[in-house]
Amino acid sequence: MPRVVVDVMLKPEILDPQGQAVANALPRLGVSDVASVRIGRRIEIEFTGEPDLDRAREIADKLLANPVIEDFTVRVVNTDETAGAQS
Amino acid sequence: MPRVVVDVMLKPEILDPQGQAVANALPRLGVSDVASVRIGRRIEIEFTGEPDLDRAREIADKLLANPVIEDFTVRVVNTDETAGAQS
Repeated sequence: MPRVVVDVMLKPEILDPQGQAVANALPRLGVSDVASVRIGRRIEIEFTGEPDLDRAREIADKLLANPVIEDFTVRVVNTDETAGAQS
Repeated sequence: MPRVVVDVMLKPEILDPQGQAVANALPRLGVSDVASVRIGRRIEIEFTGEPDLDRAREIADKLLANPVIEDFTVRVVNTDETAGAQS
């Protein structure tokens, strides 16, 4: 069953302290080739009928993202592409 | 510049109260055709050189996901596909 995935990320010009904390922890793990880490949200919306991109965009704009500091994208994916299918 | 995207979602059998709160708010917005909402994290990792999937998988396993309750997927995307390019 296809579902709609909304990806919400901080705008590039907004500082991401959570991502920076992860980036700063990496050298202690022996990882030195990472330039930056940014952490956002991924929301999976399952519709009862056909996935509705416009509806999902409306939901994202009103409930899921803060348009002042965040950008979001909306797309339809098939279930086998969602997290959990592999690791 | 390509980067690695790590998608972290709660395992399907784990309750997601945050997603449920969003789903419960939807009828008030006039949306009645959504079956479920699940909220997870999306992490973008930028490498100084070539994107390294195995390295990203190691970082996700040690720092980004809790393998007891979460699944994650790792993939390379081009910059123009990341959130912010559209909305």
